[in-house]
Formats: sequence, structure tokens, C-alpha cells
Amino acid sequence: MSTSTYEVTGMTCEHCVASVTEEVAEIPGVTDVAVDLASGGLRISSTQPIPDETVRGAVEEAGYRLA
Amino acid sequence: MSTSTYEVTGMTCEHCVASVTEEVAEIPGVTDVAVDLASGGLRISSTQPIPDETVRGAVEEAGYRLA
Repeated sequence: MSTSTYEVTGMTCEHCVASVTEEVAEIPGVTDVAVDLASGGLRISSTQPIPDETVRGAVEEAGYRLA
Repeated sequence: MSTSTYEVTGMTCEHCVASVTEEVAEIPGVTDVAVDLASGGLRISSTQPIPDETVRGAVEEAGYRLA
């Protein structure tokens, strides 16, 4: 079990939160995703460590950026 | 053929624009919907005039308000 945190920039509303959550949740091995709109916080729980670049790719796929 | 314009408040991103567009497009008789994020402008084309309250209901259903 692994948990890691990131900061996402560019989210302005709960639709943005939903988009990021959806993309990150599709990463194989991810078991839980929590996104906080106010802080930009993204917390990912997974069965094994997820490479940062994989997370970055998912966030950018959703249309946002990692800080 | 009828065209009317409104101002929507509370939209912060293109996801919001999509939500408003989708709800308004479902009003019977509506043939075209244009929403501008920057100004909040909502322009509706329809086969017959749409009551303001119907438009207000659709916008509020999407989670926003008419100015």
C-alpha cells in the first residue's frame, strides 16, 4: 500500500475536481483518490508506488498541471 | 424562430459552460445554445419564445443562476 500527495493547479470548480479524480482513478493500481479544490491537493492511495510521471500524465490529460 | 439572451453567474470553467449548455439544450423547442464563459452570456435560439422561468429553471438545474 502506498500513498502520495501532489499539488494540482488550474482547477476552478468541482467539475475540475471530478475530471482530475476520474483520470487519476484510471491509473492501474490506484485504490483511492482525494482532490481538494481549495488547496489543489491530490492524494493518491495505490497498491504499489505510482511513478510521478504517470500521475503528471493523468493530471495533464484532465487539462490541469502539477505544481 | 426566436432568440433571447441572458446573463449567467457562477460559471468558472468550460465544464460549467458545458453543464449550462446541456441543460438549456434540453428545453423543448430550443435549436441552438451559445454560452460565453468570460461574460456569462447565454444566447438561446428556439422555434418559439421560451418563458424566462423555464430558462431560469434549466440554469439552476445546472447549478448556476441568472443575473
